Amino acid sequence: MIRIGILGYGNLAKGVECAIRQNPDMELKAVFTRRNPENVTILTQNVPVLPLTEAEKWQDRIDVMILCGGSATDLPTMTPEFAKQFNVIDSFDNHANIPAHFAAVDASAKESGHIAVISSGWDPGLFSVNRLYANAILPQGQDYTFWGKGVSQGHSDAVRRIPGVLDCRQYTIPVAQAMDRVRRGENPELTTREKHTRYCYVVAEDGADKAAIEEAIKTMPNYFAPYDTTVEFISMEQMRAEHSGLPHGGSVIRSGITGWNGESHQTIEYKLTLDSNPQFTASVLVACARGAMRLKDRGVTGCQTIFDLAPADISLMTREEMLKNML
Amino acid sequence: MIRIGILGYGNLAKGVECAIRQNPDMELKAVFTRRNPENVTILTQNVPVLPLTEAEKWQDRIDVMILCGGSATDLPTMTPEFAKQFNVIDSFDNHANIPAHFAAVDASAKESGHIAVISSGWDPGLFSVNRLYANAILPQGQDYTFWGKGVSQGHSDAVRRIPGVLDCRQYTIPVAQAMDRVRRGENPELTTREKHTRYCYVVAEDGADKAAIEEAIKTMPNYFAPYDTTVEFISMEQMRAEHSGLPHGGSVIRSGITGWNGESHQTIEYKLTLDSNPQFTASVLVACARGAMRLKDRGVTGCQTIFDLAPADISLMTREEMLKNML
Repeated sequence: MIRIGILGYGNLAKGVECAIRQNPDMELKAVFTRRNPENVTILTQNVPVLPLTEAEKWQDRIDVMILCGGSATDLPTMTPEFAKQFNVIDSFDNHANIPAHFAAVDASAKESGHIAVISSGWDPGLFSVNRLYANAILPQGQDYTFWGKGVSQGHSDAVRRIPGVLDCRQYTIPVAQAMDRVRRGENPELTTREKHTRYCYVVAEDGADKAAIEEAIKTMPNYFAPYDTTVEFISMEQMRAEHSGLPHGGSVIRSGITGWNGESHQTIEYKLTLDSNPQFTASVLVACARGAMRLKDRGVTGCQTIFDLAPADISLMTREEMLKNML
Repeated sequence: MIRIGILGYGNLAKGVECAIRQNPDMELKAVFTRRNPENVTILTQNVPVLPLTEAEKWQDRIDVMILCGGSATDLPTMTPEFAKQFNVIDSFDNHANIPAHFAAVDASAKESGHIAVISSGWDPGLFSVNRLYANAILPQGQDYTFWGKGVSQGHSDAVRRIPGVLDCRQYTIPVAQAMDRVRRGENPELTTREKHTRYCYVVAEDGADKAAIEEAIKTMPNYFAPYDTTVEFISMEQMRAEHSGLPHGGSVIRSGITGWNGESHQTIEYKLTLDSNPQFTASVLVACARGAMRLKDRGVTGCQTIFDLAPADISLMTREEMLKNML
C-alpha cells in the first residue's frame, strides 16, 4: 500500500481523496490543513485532519505527500519546504516559472534524498506528455493547444474583483474554425483572438452600472482585451443552478509531415472532456504518486516530472496484464 | 549519433529511412535485404544495401537494428534471432501473440545483453500507451478503440485471393454514431457490427461473376461476415488514381467517472489521422530506437515495450528544453 498524505483541503484535495478510493494500492493516512482542523470535515472515515504544523511528525507514516496548494503563492515555497521531509507531488501550473520551481525543488529533494514530481495534472501534465510524444514522433510539425470549453478560475476571479460584481463564471471556448484549419493540416499562424473566445456569466449588485462592468471586463489587459469576449448578466439563482460545476478540457494537436519530401500529412490529437477539472487533475496527481514511488524504489531522487515516469510506472497492472490487455 | 540498420526494404522500411532523415541524432548505416541487393535502390545516398547474411559483420557499426519484417511469419523468428547480435526494434502487431513473442525475445536479448523494444508503432504502440495512461488515471471506466477511416492491408489481401479479383482496397470505417455514444458517456456495449463498417473497392477480371465475388466477400468469416460490408467495383485506372495511398488512423477513448459517488464523467480521447500508415509507424519505431539506447545506457537489457520508455527517453530535447517548451 502507498500511504498518502494530503496537504490542504480545497477542491483539488477533495479530488485526491476521491481518487485514492478508486486505487486499491493507495491509502489516505492524514489530511493537513492551515485552517482549524475542527472546522474541516473530510469524506473518508477514520482519517485524521491535523494542523499543518503536525506534518513533520508523520514522516514515517506517509510515503507521498500530495501538495494541494495554489501555484501563485503556496507551491513556490511549499514544495521545496516539504520535499525536505517527504516525497511530494504538486500541480504547479505557472508555465513560465516551471524551470525555477524545478531548480528549487530539485535542490531540496536531492539534499534530503526524497523524490518530487512537480507540475502534474493535465496542463501541465498529460497535455505536456502528448506534446512531447508528438514532437518526438513528428519532428517536423507544429503544435497547437486549445482549451475549453471550460471554466477558467483565474479569469472568473479577475471579474469578481470588479466593483459591482457579486459572482462570475468565465468559460474559455476554443474557436471551432481554427481547430478545423489545424486538423486539415493548414498549419495556420493563429493569433490569441483567433484561437479562443471568452464568455462571462456575471451576477451584478442591484443597481450596479452594467455597461461599466461590461466595459471593465472587455478592456482588461491580458485577461480579456486580446479576446472576443461576451458578457451576459444572470441572476444569483441562475448562477447556482447552471454554473456550479467546474468543467474543462481541451485539445493538443500536432500537425506534422513525414516522407522523403514531406509528402504525407499526419495529425496527432489528444482531447480531454472533463465534467470536473479538479477531480481529473487529482486523478493524475494520484497516478503520479504511484510513479514517484516506483522511481524511488529504483533509487531515483530529486525533482522529476511526468516526462520521467514511464507509462508502466504509473500503472497498477502487472507486466503480464499490460502485455495481454493493453499493448 | 545513433547508428541505425534497417532489415528489409518494404513500405515500413522506407518509412524508417525517411524518419531517420528527420532526426538529427540518427544515422542510417546499412540496409539488409533477403532480395538480391543489386535490385534494391534506396533513397539515401552512400548507404550500402547488403544481403541479410552480411548483417552479423556489422555488430560493431550499428547501435540499433530496426526489423521491418511482417508479424505473421518474419518477426516471430527474426526478432529473437537478431536480438542475439543487436539491439532491436520491431512492430510485431499480432496482439494475441504478444506475450509469447515477448518471452522469446526477452530470453534471447537477456542472454546476449542487448535490449529489444517490441510491438512499437501506433496499435500496438501509441494507442497502447494511451490506453495505459487513461486506465491509470481513470481506474473506473471503459476503453474503446475505433480504427479508420483507413486501408486495412490484411483485409485487402484477403479479397485479392478471391478468384476473379485483380485488386482490392479495403477501407475500415468507424461508425460515427457509436463514437458519439461513447463520447456522451453512455458506456455502450458495442458489437463488432456496431463499431465499424467495411468498404471494398474491387477491380474484377473481365467477365468475372461480380455477384459471386460480392457474395464471397460479404460472407467471408471473421474478415467480413461480422460487419456491414459494401462492395464497389471500379476500374484499374480508378484504383491507381484514387487508392494508391495507405491512409489510416483511429481513436482510443476512455470514458470514466470520478468523484466520491462517481458523479463526474471524464473522457480521454486520442486520435490519429494519418496520410501514410507505414511512414507514421516508422516514425514511432525510430523514436523508440532512441528510447532503447537511453535505457541501454542505464544498464537495461532484455525485452521492453513502449510502456517502459519514459516520454523523456524518446525525446531529443534536453531537460531544459522540455521544462521550458513542453511542460
